[in-house]
Amino acid sequence: MNDQAIILFAHGARDPDWAAPFGIIQQQLQAARPQVQVMLAFQDFMTPTLEAAVAQSAAQGAKRIVLVPLFMAQGGHLKQDLPLLVGKIRQQHPQLELQVMPAIGDAPEILRAITDWVLRGASYT
Amino acid sequence: MNDQAIILFAHGARDPDWAAPFGIIQQQLQAARPQVQVMLAFQDFMTPTLEAAVAQSAAQGAKRIVLVPLFMAQGGHLKQDLPLLVGKIRQQHPQLELQVMPAIGDAPEILRAITDWVLRGASYT
Repeated sequence: MNDQAIILFAHGARDPDWAAPFGIIQQQLQAARPQVQVMLAFQDFMTPTLEAAVAQSAAQGAKRIVLVPLFMAQGGHLKQDLPLLVGKIRQQHPQLELQVMPAIGDAPEILRAITDWVLRGASYT
Repeated sequence: MNDQAIILFAHGARDPDWAAPFGIIQQQLQAARPQVQVMLAFQDFMTPTLEAAVAQSAAQGAKRIVLVPLFMAQGGHLKQDLPLLVGKIRQQHPQLELQVMPAIGDAPEILRAITDWVLRGASYT
């Protein structure tokens, strides 16, 4: 039974193309974990909201959700807004187990991947 | 002679801690390229601005600058605001060679690193 979900939570933007990289990550995760629901959710400008994505996951049988904030770093969005939103979601869905991952910039391996990418891309004479 | 620079250009935030991951990338790049000036610049809330960072690099002898927008994806900031700003900078410093890298989310290896990090971090029963 499909009782696990991953929700990728991104900032959102007015430009619809903005979401493309997050869609690629979603597809890669879905390919690696075909039995898990993998969804996108957005804070602003784009839909679904995080609350709507959680409600949809729960309606489809999710009992455990991993929430991945695809933000570069910990600022007001992750330190203040997200905990409030997660608190509200926990009240709405007390039966759900909710794991919140850190920001991308908290992962040393991703910072290293960015550094290496800059070193490869920045061509020097 | 130190005539090359890398400027890491990030969104900025009110929370000073937000810049920490970008500082780590800066240090890693500086360690890998000790002869290159590696600087941070911000669009909003934090300083220096991109214009100020370019002016400082140029004043310190930079002739070629690689500009790295540390944004997750291409939206209004990178598609509209940044080209205008880069155009202005090219007019201010016509002698500078300026290379602008794509967004982080345009790099397949970084998307893959994020996917792998989520797979490692999201623990399943």
